[in-house]
Amino acid sequence: MLNDKLLKLRDEMSKNGIDAYIIPSSDAHQSEYVAEYFKGRRWISNFTGSAGTAVITSDSAGLWTDGRYFIQAEKELEGSGFDLFKMAEEGVPTYPEWLKSVVKKDGIIGFDGKVISVSAYNELKKGFDEDNFKIQYDLLESIWDDRPSFPKENIFVHDLSYAGKSTSEKIDIIRGIYHSHGADSYILSSLDDIAWTFNLRGSDVLNNTTFYAYALIEDDKTTLFIDRDKLDEETKLYLKENNIVLKSYDEITADLSNLKNKNIYLSPERTSIYIESLLQNNKIIHDKEITAYLKAVKNEVEIQNSRECYLNDSIALLKGFKHIEENFKETPITELDVEDIIKNERSKIDGFKGISFDTIAGYKDHAALMHFKANEKNTYTLDSRDFLLVDSGGQYLNGTTDITRTFSLGEITPEQKKDFTLVLKSVINLSRAKFLKGTTGYKLDMLARYPLWLEGIDYKCGTGHGVGFFLNIHEGPQGFSVRKSHDLPLEVGMNLTIEPGVYKEGRHGIRTENTVIVKEAFTNESGTFYEFETISFFPIDINSIDPSLLNSDELEWINTYHAATFNKLSPYLNIDEVNWLKEKTKQI
Amino acid sequence: MLNDKLLKLRDEMSKNGIDAYIIPSSDAHQSEYVAEYFKGRRWISNFTGSAGTAVITSDSAGLWTDGRYFIQAEKELEGSGFDLFKMAEEGVPTYPEWLKSVVKKDGIIGFDGKVISVSAYNELKKGFDEDNFKIQYDLLESIWDDRPSFPKENIFVHDLSYAGKSTSEKIDIIRGIYHSHGADSYILSSLDDIAWTFNLRGSDVLNNTTFYAYALIEDDKTTLFIDRDKLDEETKLYLKENNIVLKSYDEITADLSNLKNKNIYLSPERTSIYIESLLQNNKIIHDKEITAYLKAVKNEVEIQNSRECYLNDSIALLKGFKHIEENFKETPITELDVEDIIKNERSKIDGFKGISFDTIAGYKDHAALMHFKANEKNTYTLDSRDFLLVDSGGQYLNGTTDITRTFSLGEITPEQKKDFTLVLKSVINLSRAKFLKGTTGYKLDMLARYPLWLEGIDYKCGTGHGVGFFLNIHEGPQGFSVRKSHDLPLEVGMNLTIEPGVYKEGRHGIRTENTVIVKEAFTNESGTFYEFETISFFPIDINSIDPSLLNSDELEWINTYHAATFNKLSPYLNIDEVNWLKEKTKQI
Repeated sequence: MLNDKLLKLRDEMSKNGIDAYIIPSSDAHQSEYVAEYFKGRRWISNFTGSAGTAVITSDSAGLWTDGRYFIQAEKELEGSGFDLFKMAEEGVPTYPEWLKSVVKKDGIIGFDGKVISVSAYNELKKGFDEDNFKIQYDLLESIWDDRPSFPKENIFVHDLSYAGKSTSEKIDIIRGIYHSHGADSYILSSLDDIAWTFNLRGSDVLNNTTFYAYALIEDDKTTLFIDRDKLDEETKLYLKENNIVLKSYDEITADLSNLKNKNIYLSPERTSIYIESLLQNNKIIHDKEITAYLKAVKNEVEIQNSRECYLNDSIALLKGFKHIEENFKETPITELDVEDIIKNERSKIDGFKGISFDTIAGYKDHAALMHFKANEKNTYTLDSRDFLLVDSGGQYLNGTTDITRTFSLGEITPEQKKDFTLVLKSVINLSRAKFLKGTTGYKLDMLARYPLWLEGIDYKCGTGHGVGFFLNIHEGPQGFSVRKSHDLPLEVGMNLTIEPGVYKEGRHGIRTENTVIVKEAFTNESGTFYEFETISFFPIDINSIDPSLLNSDELEWINTYHAATFNKLSPYLNIDEVNWLKEKTKQI
Repeated sequence: MLNDKLLKLRDEMSKNGIDAYIIPSSDAHQSEYVAEYFKGRRWISNFTGSAGTAVITSDSAGLWTDGRYFIQAEKELEGSGFDLFKMAEEGVPTYPEWLKSVVKKDGIIGFDGKVISVSAYNELKKGFDEDNFKIQYDLLESIWDDRPSFPKENIFVHDLSYAGKSTSEKIDIIRGIYHSHGADSYILSSLDDIAWTFNLRGSDVLNNTTFYAYALIEDDKTTLFIDRDKLDEETKLYLKENNIVLKSYDEITADLSNLKNKNIYLSPERTSIYIESLLQNNKIIHDKEITAYLKAVKNEVEIQNSRECYLNDSIALLKGFKHIEENFKETPITELDVEDIIKNERSKIDGFKGISFDTIAGYKDHAALMHFKANEKNTYTLDSRDFLLVDSGGQYLNGTTDITRTFSLGEITPEQKKDFTLVLKSVINLSRAKFLKGTTGYKLDMLARYPLWLEGIDYKCGTGHGVGFFLNIHEGPQGFSVRKSHDLPLEVGMNLTIEPGVYKEGRHGIRTENTVIVKEAFTNESGTFYEFETISFFPIDINSIDPSLLNSDELEWINTYHAATFNKLSPYLNIDEVNWLKEKTKQI
């Protein structure tokens, strides 16, 4: 069946004179998570991970993905006709390098220009001629029979009591910034940036609160390109009051094509080569996405909302975990059940709008798959041993949560206990940091890896990422990782997850994840120092900790953290829950 | 008197139609340490630090230097007519930024093109027109009456039993590398790279083993441009045997001017704009200095020599420290005496060729000046309290050493003890690291700062640098620091110092410095890990350590280090010295 899809695609490629065709994971807005309509890469390859690029030639097909998905991709690609290329592994070519080796000098490489960014295209075309590319073809359109329809979910206004800053304030700031770069207009394609700018939310993408739209901010007007039938009267009125011009989603093509002699600011990382190709008669100013930096620094209202949001989220999580722990020995509970139990508890919280990403509930060796998703076929039933890893979160009006805990369900091996303790040491080492203003997430990442590296263990992913505010679960530009893009000073108000792990294929997986906010610590003769405020409070499994591996600073950290967890959560719990929490947060 | 020099310079500037004149610290080879002939910046400003740039206009004069020298520069610039600009401090302009604010649109900026690199010039001219610059004038030539003469010290062959690799092997490798960049020739200006390439050493620059020369490596011949009277018959024969053409130093101008249609590889960071300006009729390929990378990775012969060299060096240092400790209470010993005592002990070692940099012997608040140099006027006499910091090293045929120890001479305050222990924690944290292949000194730098930052203390300099092999005390490209240039993977065989410190102006200074070599630790499913081998063994003052601040890993490190120090040094000591060392290295 899969071979059939490849066959059809190759037929289309041949009709259109294309020798190699690229299908990335992205949508027309360079989103990480995309609507079903855009999941062509999954459709053709069977690989379900969130990140990956498929490249097809007449006689071969490759799928590139990163360390989070190596194990999963290997399984899913079996029999698909696709070879797996493990990104960033030694000796593995990038897909542009691979294209260079398989496409003839005058060969033609094709892709849908909407789903590849300006900078990805500029990177890709190095070492090729411009003539090597045909960028206008969405070849899937004619061969993907049951392609899902383009999403048309309702959108609504995100109240100022949550957002903390009005859309007109935000647009004023944006104009000030693009002016300082010599621009007179700004094109926004990124869905979360559009949602943030206009204080609107939707549900076009599963687990996300974004909606498909473009925006054009000019000095004298702001235009939102969006399907009108997504808007109710209240939202239309809100936009009118804010002097925002409404046009349909598809009108972006004509409107941009008509622009002349403007100085247009856009982010090449977050705008498609298709959009840029419409702007031939204008001067284009490439720079960082203005709104990405603005939205990354949470305002005081957002921060206070986030603290409350994480508290509520932890209470739901507590009820879920307690239920699982107290019942799994008598009643069979599968990984899929775990997802449901926790989602059910979260759904009882005021302002809950859905989960913020596919829950990862991995038991035993499933937990070694960083982004495991259980299904009816593969789901394990919990037993009185080994680790259960649950990475989950919710979308609430007052914030987005992301938290991981790993609990032992009974007997664990000394190696498992040591690995669990090393992950805890890693969390503590980074969480405790004080750092000079100007220090980057790229440098701080070292602190989390240090305790694990001492024991020869690395996790093949970042240490942490920014989190949207009632928005995307992964939000830039900040992050802790070995990626140079995270060599960016952390600013007061930015939030980040801290989520190191140990992943041993076929054996066990451990991850402990908190969310922190950057705040000012003090200023002295050495300069201004920042520190992290942890805002997620939930027990870290003390039964899995080997206290003899912790030094006194680390013991103090975990005990202080657990005392705070008890104090913050217990007022909202019944006596039974309080007792459960007391046991889970007892001093070690 | 100083004002007189500025007056004369302004007169020359006016005659030559120059509105602003730049005098960097460099020589014609972009050296860090330079011959007296090139110390025009010191001559005009009185500032004696190794790094700094003077810029003079008709009515103002500025001196830019970095954090190592802020305190010193403030003192030395007093009454000089120069304002101090503290580099990298918030709100302080760089000198190009400052030039932009003080030089008129059609103003003329001048400098001697030999002492500014291609890349510094390219950086400098941003935001100016090419017409704003006159780069051919060495205005000091006519006003600096007592200018020291150009150095003409003898040079000699560095034996293969030390160097480990012959000059012809090295030149073959260099040719292979420039070929892979599409070049057919390579210009070398950096003095230490020339010394390394040709296995020659000299003494043109105080405390250095370099000599003034240029080299041009082509496919069919290699030319060394050097004053012939520096060479004895043996060295001339050696060069002849290696097919190296000798030309006089000044012939580089004519020879390069005659080159045509060549593809010339050069490092823009390490070649002067003057040299590049001679190559108009050729294609120039800018890239990293090939030899800098080759020489940074020490070969096995160099590494074994370095281990022995550090051992001998420590024995000399031990005799010196022991003498000071046993005598300063009875006989007055000044900081200057400390320099002499230690130099005298080093000079007894076979193969000693001089000290490797100006000894920093700082007592009490003098130690807070990172690069303090005592003189007759300011030197302190040691007393039975406070810290004595000694940062020193030697040039030996079998290596270059650099080591710092801080000892308390009696009573110290709890704050001093805490600071000393924090510096030790910092040394240990980085020294113990295991790190994945590909990890950079920029990232690892974080590990040394972490324990100090937790207490709100930063040192305003790098954590460590590469060290030459019987060559420059500071050698790139590797280093531990917050500089992006050190975001460069460490390779097996590279050496680095680890030298964090605490510097409290007017109070005390502490630095502990070891040298380490990168070696492979192990390879497993997570990848290949590297670690550091410490090669400097010398007691770290246990009387200044507060053991209650050390965790068990740290206690183990210091005790293991001291046991190794005793075992390595004691076989070469007399009974009295062995007893002294036993006391200094006892377990805590």
